[in-house]
Amino acid sequence: MKAQASTVSRRVLHWQAGGKAVRVEDALATEEPLEIQVDTQPFVVTMRTPGHDKELAAGFLLTEGLIQSRKQILKIASHARNQSGNVIDVFLAPDVSVDFASLKRNVYVSSSCGLCGKASIEAVHRHFKKVKSGMKVSVKLLASLPGLLRKEQATFELTGGLHAAAIFDSRGRLLAAREDVGRHNAVDKVLGFALLNDKLPLDRHILMVSGRASFEIMQKALAARIPIVAAVSAPSSLAVQFAMESRQTLVGFLRDDRLNIYSRPERIRFS
Amino acid sequence: MKAQASTVSRRVLHWQAGGKAVRVEDALATEEPLEIQVDTQPFVVTMRTPGHDKELAAGFLLTEGLIQSRKQILKIASHARNQSGNVIDVFLAPDVSVDFASLKRNVYVSSSCGLCGKASIEAVHRHFKKVKSGMKVSVKLLASLPGLLRKEQATFELTGGLHAAAIFDSRGRLLAAREDVGRHNAVDKVLGFALLNDKLPLDRHILMVSGRASFEIMQKALAARIPIVAAVSAPSSLAVQFAMESRQTLVGFLRDDRLNIYSRPERIRFS
Repeated sequence: MKAQASTVSRRVLHWQAGGKAVRVEDALATEEPLEIQVDTQPFVVTMRTPGHDKELAAGFLLTEGLIQSRKQILKIASHARNQSGNVIDVFLAPDVSVDFASLKRNVYVSSSCGLCGKASIEAVHRHFKKVKSGMKVSVKLLASLPGLLRKEQATFELTGGLHAAAIFDSRGRLLAAREDVGRHNAVDKVLGFALLNDKLPLDRHILMVSGRASFEIMQKALAARIPIVAAVSAPSSLAVQFAMESRQTLVGFLRDDRLNIYSRPERIRFS
Repeated sequence: MKAQASTVSRRVLHWQAGGKAVRVEDALATEEPLEIQVDTQPFVVTMRTPGHDKELAAGFLLTEGLIQSRKQILKIASHARNQSGNVIDVFLAPDVSVDFASLKRNVYVSSSCGLCGKASIEAVHRHFKKVKSGMKVSVKLLASLPGLLRKEQATFELTGGLHAAAIFDSRGRLLAAREDVGRHNAVDKVLGFALLNDKLPLDRHILMVSGRASFEIMQKALAARIPIVAAVSAPSSLAVQFAMESRQTLVGFLRDDRLNIYSRPERIRFS
C-alpha cells in the first residue's frame, strides 16, 4: 500500500501585474477518490484528501444513518486486494442490518409538498432525533474559535485549497480538527473521529466549519447530536430552517470578533 | 407553481465585540432540492438555489455525458403534477438512448491501479474527448475577469453565500454568469445556458469559477470543450493532473492582478 501525502508539490508559472512570469514551486492539496465498501459491497465513491480515511468512512456511515456507535463496527481496513490505498472496507457487527434501499438519501419526497426543503428536513428527522441539550456557551468563547481553527489548518496555510472542520467542547477545548478538499468530508472526518473514540453523542459540543453552512452540514451535525454549529461564512436558507426545526443553534459569519445567530440563541450567553 | 426567490430575508441576532446583540435583517441564499427527471425517470436530486433550473438540468445532463447538443432535448418543463417547482422534466429526442447503467459516475475503477486519480481521469476520457483549441488570450485579459465576475455576483453581495461561474469569450466578453449555493450547480447552469442557446462547443471560451478548481469542475469544463479554466482560489492535485491530460489550460489564484498557471501555458500571451 502506498501512503498518500495530503499535499503534492508542482512547478507552476506565477505572474503578477508589472512583472514577468516566473516558475515557482506550489503546494497543491491532494485530491484522490476513495471508495467506501460496507461488508464488501461498494457503497460510495467520494473525492477526498488522503489521510484519516477510517474516520471519513466511519463518519460517513454515521451521517448517512447506517450506524450510531462504535460497537456496530467490527473493523475498518484498507481493501486487501487493492494497492492504491483508495478503497476502504467497513465490516459491521452481525446484528447491524443495513437496508440500503431505505437510506435517507432516497426519501426526499413527502406527500404534502412533493419535493421541497420541508420534506427534505422531515426525511432527515425520520432517521435522526431532534437535538436535546442544555449546553450554553459565552459569545466570547465562540469568538475565539476561528483563531483556534486557523491554527489547525496546516494544509490550508500551505495550499489555500482545503476546507476545515473542528469539534470543540463547551469550554472551547479542541477535540479534533480535520481538513479535506471536500467540505462534507472534513465534517465526516471529525465526526468519524468522535465515533471511533467513543465520544458520541456530542451533545455538549460545537461543530465549527471553515466555510458555509448548508442543509447537509446541519444534517451531519444532527447525526452526531451536536447542539451548536458555527460557520465562518453564510448559512443557506435551508440550513437555517433545518436548524430551527432540529433545535440546533446556528451561528454564521463567525469571524473578526463578530457573528450572527440564526436559531436558538438561548444557548449563547452575552454577559 | 410557486416562483421561488433566490434569497430570503430573516431576522437574526448580530453581535460584535464591545457591543450588544442586536436584531437585524439578514438576506440568505435560498437552498431547495431539485429533482431532475429524464423521460419521467428520476435521475438525480441536487440542493440548489432556485432560478435557471432548465439550464441546470440541461447542463447537468451535458456534463454527466447523457447529451451533447440542444437538438437531443425535445422539451424541459416543470413537472406537471408537482406544485413545489422543485421537480423538472427533461424529455429527450426519440433517437437519444440513455444507458443509465454505464454512465461515467460508475466507472472510476481501472485495471491498472484499481481506484485512483488516473483511473478517474481515464474514465472521463472514455466519454469526453481531450480539448483541441488554438485559442490564446493575454494575461491582462485574464486579470480583468475577477472584476467582471464580481459585478455579476448580485446575490453573493447580498448574502455572502453563493458560488459563481461565468463563461467569457476570447475577447473577455461575458456570455453568461450564474450563482448557486452549490459550486457544481453554478457551472452546470452556465454550461446549460450555452447548450440551450446553441453555443456549444465552447472551444474558444474561458470558464471562470469563484472558488476552487476540483476534478469535477475540470470534467464539466471538458464536457463543453472549454480550453481555459480560471479559478479565484486553489486547484486540487487532481484538477491539475486532469487538466494536463485533457490539454486544458488551468489558471488558479486569479485575483488582485496575479495568477498561477498550472497547465498548458502556451494559451496565455504575456507580452
